Amino acid sequence: MTTKTLQDLYIHSLSDIYSAEKQMTKSLPKMARASTNPGLRSAFEAHLEETQGQIGRIDQVVEAGGIKLKRIKCVAMEGLIEEGLEQIDEIEKGPVLDTALIAAAQKVEHYEIAAYGSLIALAKQLGETDAVKLLGDTLKEEKATDEKLSLLAEEKQAAEALGK
Amino acid sequence: MTTKTLQDLYIHSLSDIYSAEKQMTKSLPKMARASTNPGLRSAFEAHLEETQGQIGRIDQVVEAGGIKLKRIKCVAMEGLIEEGLEQIDEIEKGPVLDTALIAAAQKVEHYEIAAYGSLIALAKQLGETDAVKLLGDTLKEEKATDEKLSLLAEEKQAAEALGK
Repeated sequence: MTTKTLQDLYIHSLSDIYSAEKQMTKSLPKMARASTNPGLRSAFEAHLEETQGQIGRIDQVVEAGGIKLKRIKCVAMEGLIEEGLEQIDEIEKGPVLDTALIAAAQKVEHYEIAAYGSLIALAKQLGETDAVKLLGDTLKEEKATDEKLSLLAEEKQAAEALGK
Repeated sequence: MTTKTLQDLYIHSLSDIYSAEKQMTKSLPKMARASTNPGLRSAFEAHLEETQGQIGRIDQVVEAGGIKLKRIKCVAMEGLIEEGLEQIDEIEKGPVLDTALIAAAQKVEHYEIAAYGSLIALAKQLGETDAVKLLGDTLKEEKATDEKLSLLAEEKQAAEALGK
């Protein structure tokens, strides 16, 4: 029993999302390279840059709170990424793979939306106001990325319906 | 390359969420038993019943569409569940574990929200109007469960702040 208090759970959750974000920095370039749609490719590239900033925010939270992160691997993100990369192996480059990549990326974004939502609730309860602000900025970015991906899926559909 | 068309991707995605829901029916009872908060326990029990209905809707979609689901295991849900069950082993029963279980369940709900969202977009594109309706009903339930869990987290916090 290494997790006894809410503070322990907070550190565990921060360590988990840190691992998740680090894994994303490795898989986003692969997803960008596999995309045919230029808008999708640039969305992945932009999100990679954003992810680096989000890791920087976790570093700030850790430093300000005098926290030592645990070296754990986020197995949930591992599964999500595995699912996305499998699609790259199984589907030829083109509109179908692009649709699959958008779906895979939205699953990842929703994982992060849930993870940051819970982390912010914990930070509030622990009175970590700077962390609430920093993690809140990241949560806004994750939601915006999810919306951007939904729009890309709709635009793709409309273009394909017109036979473009 | 077994996935070539949007129809192939649709069947793959239906098979994936079918596996995810089936896995949930096995883990929800464990999460209910591990909960101390009676509201949380009954939320898990209610969601188990709802999940059975959601599997029934996938069966309807499959039958109406003359679809044969693939026997695949949703590795992303496997990772999400593993993460939740690990918490049960690592944290003593009580308010901290309840908080961890809420967070784990919200990650699962968000996975399903993203998965059904993408499935509905595919079903629309393929002109599967009955499927759009059925999967839309499930999506509403998943969103409602996520909101219920957010409320439970807030109520728990308020009660703990009052030293209850």
